[in-house]
Amino acid sequence: MKRILIQLDTDAHASSFDRVVAVDSDVDELFSYSSVTPENVEPLVHGGMFTRGPKDLKSTAIFVGGSNVAAGEAVVDKVKNTFFGPVRVSVMLDSNGSNTTAAAAVLAARRHLNFAETEALVLGGTGPVGQRAAQLLASEGATVRVGSRSLERSQSACEAIAADVEDAKLTPIQAGTPDEVTSAADGVRLIIAAGAAGVEFLSVEQRQQLQSLKVAVDVNAVPPVGLAGIEVMDNGVDRDGVICFGAIGVGGTKMKIHKAGIRRLFESNDQVLVTDSIYEIGKQLEEN
Amino acid sequence: MKRILIQLDTDAHASSFDRVVAVDSDVDELFSYSSVTPENVEPLVHGGMFTRGPKDLKSTAIFVGGSNVAAGEAVVDKVKNTFFGPVRVSVMLDSNGSNTTAAAAVLAARRHLNFAETEALVLGGTGPVGQRAAQLLASEGATVRVGSRSLERSQSACEAIAADVEDAKLTPIQAGTPDEVTSAADGVRLIIAAGAAGVEFLSVEQRQQLQSLKVAVDVNAVPPVGLAGIEVMDNGVDRDGVICFGAIGVGGTKMKIHKAGIRRLFESNDQVLVTDSIYEIGKQLEEN
Amino acid sequence: MKRILIQLDTDAHASSFDRVVAVDSDVDELFSYSSVTPENVEPLVHGGMFTRGPKDLKSTAIFVGGSNVAAGEAVVDKVKNTFFGPVRVSVMLDSNGSNTTAAAAVLAARRHLNFAETEALVLGGTGPVGQRAAQLLASEGATVRVGSRSLERSQSACEAIAADVEDAKLTPIQAGTPDEVTSAADGVRLIIAAGAAGVEFLSVEQRQQLQSLKVAVDVNAVPPVGLAGIEVMDNGVDRDGVICFGAIGVGGTKMKIHKAGIRRLFESNDQVLVTDSIYEIGKQLEEN
Repeated sequence: MKRILIQLDTDAHASSFDRVVAVDSDVDELFSYSSVTPENVEPLVHGGMFTRGPKDLKSTAIFVGGSNVAAGEAVVDKVKNTFFGPVRVSVMLDSNGSNTTAAAAVLAARRHLNFAETEALVLGGTGPVGQRAAQLLASEGATVRVGSRSLERSQSACEAIAADVEDAKLTPIQAGTPDEVTSAADGVRLIIAAGAAGVEFLSVEQRQQLQSLKVAVDVNAVPPVGLAGIEVMDNGVDRDGVICFGAIGVGGTKMKIHKAGIRRLFESNDQVLVTDSIYEIGKQLEEN
Repeated sequence: MKRILIQLDTDAHASSFDRVVAVDSDVDELFSYSSVTPENVEPLVHGGMFTRGPKDLKSTAIFVGGSNVAAGEAVVDKVKNTFFGPVRVSVMLDSNGSNTTAAAAVLAARRHLNFAETEALVLGGTGPVGQRAAQLLASEGATVRVGSRSLERSQSACEAIAADVEDAKLTPIQAGTPDEVTSAADGVRLIIAAGAAGVEFLSVEQRQQLQSLKVAVDVNAVPPVGLAGIEVMDNGVDRDGVICFGAIGVGGTKMKIHKAGIRRLFESNDQVLVTDSIYEIGKQLEEN
Repeated sequence: MKRILIQLDTDAHASSFDRVVAVDSDVDELFSYSSVTPENVEPLVHGGMFTRGPKDLKSTAIFVGGSNVAAGEAVVDKVKNTFFGPVRVSVMLDSNGSNTTAAAAVLAARRHLNFAETEALVLGGTGPVGQRAAQLLASEGATVRVGSRSLERSQSACEAIAADVEDAKLTPIQAGTPDEVTSAADGVRLIIAAGAAGVEFLSVEQRQQLQSLKVAVDVNAVPPVGLAGIEVMDNGVDRDGVICFGAIGVGGTKMKIHKAGIRRLFESNDQVLVTDSIYEIGKQLEEN
């Protein structure tokens, strides 16, 4: 039975990145749909549900992607609501690479830190990657400061994470200007920077003054990065006593997680691979 | 030579149902086109006609689908007019599953009835599935009452069928309300209900009063079905002395016909699989 | 590593012709995009660049097509500008078959003429196929008269060719009416007619009066052709002492060049197959 992946993309052109990765993850047939919305997705899901017998349903799966993460989440919600009972197929969400990137960033830090003892700051902590990284850190027992230019948005993000993660240790914090960021970073061992393109949170000098900092991850792929001095290729480089990771540096891990996620979809028909389950796949890869 | 199926779908997203079935019918490469109309289809057909040599043309074929059956018929007409002489590829029409569903419904009844001696009533007989079922029954020699809320539309449908089927024994009949349906069903051995979703033609009690009725088929996949008491999973269940079939009950036959039709396309380059030829495929499957 | 071809088509439906040819050229996975423009193409190229390691980049390639040649050229320019350094994939341009058709037309003539001693006239010489044929003839050392209804457009085309081809021997010439064409053709050994559909440049009688003419190629696939008396199937037929080729006559060569071009893309990741490089592929095929 051929492995069919139904790619539901919210953009006008379905991501060619996601298509290449699917092909390289042993998908036999890829059905790529563009401009997918909660309103038009139902028949596409039905076509996956009603064409193969119960024991073959695991050979069909759904991948939701596209540049807009909120749009992808809305599509996944509708997909899950379209299933009924055991008549379902596995589904993975990775709009804009947000889940795999957050997982790879947190896993990079995990190689060098004991999260249970880690105070962490996530910059751009209300964005798609930042909020996911904060969620994963909190679920690992870290104490997490969720930084944003807007304290209000940060509070909302913390509430959303707390609803998902039991006993999450979260602090909303205003961290937009370099002064605010310097203050927000006081005493932290880990910074993950996941801000918008072109926003510099800290200069090299400001970062050097953070005595407690052990690990810094910047997921911005295009310079200037958020934490000046980190290079996009950094993959565990020691800079002034801080272990540094850039976007391409964690890209290898991200890609492995993405491929493992696609392969996992075809192991059973009942999987929903989102932030936490995708991170778990990454943890298993690290441990093997 | 790889088997290429060119899927011409009249909807904004080409049916994922039809795509899975194509993959499961040994198609090697599926080219899925959406928003296909008679106006834009010509170059897509030319690409199938002019790329492979005469003896390899049978390895390319066309499938026309989409939710709108009339739109699919218009596309097939244009496809056939685009061919010239032997420079052609085989083509199958199954918009909204209408041809395979009608064939499966009639074949289910055929297992239990001698059509030459059968008086049949088709409810929703002017719709895509209903009219096709009526056509197939007429071609098998049954006497067919074509029911519709509108006598005028029923008369049109009968005329259209009579133009295709020699010696068709057809009666247009107004059958919208339960009273009209009860009256229309008087003396029939077979009812096929193919009305719009949510329309109940007969209550359980009304159906139980039809003494002559032997077989009832309801092709509505979503309850409430048109003939109350029939379950969508029914596949030859005896209910009060009537052998009953529901939409999912005949779904297995429908799917086999669909797959056999796709495979048949690649046996030669001159086939046109529409209502009657698709039914013939189903008959051959029953007999093997 | 599977061979992936990313088809970037400027039309609303990606060419099914190009898709079949890709499948028949050993492409494993074809990603077909429609309505591609310079504005939306960048992420599609990035997906090809950033998904496979350096040594595997040659297993991904790009094909640019569609009915509008100028639109395809603009997309190819943007594609090339999106690459950086060695992070690139091979790309082929053949919008409307213009490059492969021009190459096949010139190669047909080349079998019968020594271009260094050939005076040639290209009719419709400012159109997509005509200008490319004139360019190839000039690059082979022929003396080329570039005919057009508009002398000004012909002068522009000659300037564009001269910018690409060293020591090109080009003459712009007004050749729209039969009288102008007769005059423009005086003394030429080769005419390639690549005008718009339905334009007859010369009647049979007018052509018969051209004493010097040895070879005539007409790339118009639909009668009436530009040079009356040539049949679309002509493939080296002698008509009144002139060796004649029609569109379908050179179609076999065109198709071989197209397929060889697609296969060539996957030999390295740095190829740009446009007019001259596609013609070189054709020459190699002739010599093998």
